[in-house]
Amino acid sequence: MKLPHELKLAACVALGLATSAVAYAQSMKPEDAITARRAVMRVIALNFEPIGAMIKGDIPFDAAVAKTNAARMASVSQMPLQAYFPEGSDSNAGEVKTRALPEIWLATEEFAEQMEAMRHALEKLAEVAQGGDQGAIKAQVGEVGKVCKSCHDDFRNS
Amino acid sequence: MKLPHELKLAACVALGLATSAVAYAQSMKPEDAITARRAVMRVIALNFEPIGAMIKGDIPFDAAVAKTNAARMASVSQMPLQAYFPEGSDSNAGEVKTRALPEIWLATEEFAEQMEAMRHALEKLAEVAQGGDQGAIKAQVGEVGKVCKSCHDDFRNS
Repeated sequence: MKLPHELKLAACVALGLATSAVAYAQSMKPEDAITARRAVMRVIALNFEPIGAMIKGDIPFDAAVAKTNAARMASVSQMPLQAYFPEGSDSNAGEVKTRALPEIWLATEEFAEQMEAMRHALEKLAEVAQGGDQGAIKAQVGEVGKVCKSCHDDFRNS
Repeated sequence: MKLPHELKLAACVALGLATSAVAYAQSMKPEDAITARRAVMRVIALNFEPIGAMIKGDIPFDAAVAKTNAARMASVSQMPLQAYFPEGSDSNAGEVKTRALPEIWLATEEFAEQMEAMRHALEKLAEVAQGGDQGAIKAQVGEVGKVCKSCHDDFRNS
């Protein structure tokens, strides 16, 4: 049975389940969940790209942008991202496409660990960027890149 | 002539134009720009929704979530959103849909004012949420809602 978002939410509240933003997110329709997780990942990438370009020397190093963007990525990564992968959101929902692999719902612990690894790496990058040391930022950008690649290799269709 | 993103970026750098994240964003292809702005707005909405639901009484009030989400929205609203509306990104780009109205590129000053009004309203909400007063948060949520509606009425296809 397909219930509207508000009704599902009300049902959760009635059952005493929706006391958090996570529960709220979990009541999303598959297409909304896919859009949500893609938006979160896209916003993280948009903030990462200029830092990556600085590190590669494609654009001049700007410590203020690195600091602001790193802090923003750390904050956005704390959103309830796993809740945006509800059961049933494993395939394209009409025009809304997903590259999520079935492993997300099979290896839930490993997926949770990867999410935590991302949060940890971005938190560290925010700390390092606070200091403004280009070399230290470069090293941590490398660590973030590894974490991204590892999760995408295991859980995202290339 | 369609240049890859990296080449356009390199050209900007060579011309001394790309000294900021804004210039970096402005070198995006229309479909990437549309995806970027939609992601930014979606992430803001994802953070706003639980606060809205709390204010309406659909879910219990949670001062910590209000504070965290309001701070995150304020940060994300500082992204170079206007740069994600480059010339030529006024219509659907293949599968990437946009609801942007032509007024965005005609009334650029008014559009810029609306962006600033959004940033200001979200900054104020972050301040108010810091205090944790439910009534004050509710009042400012109302102000944010007005700003959203005003810009969407003028610049977004319903």
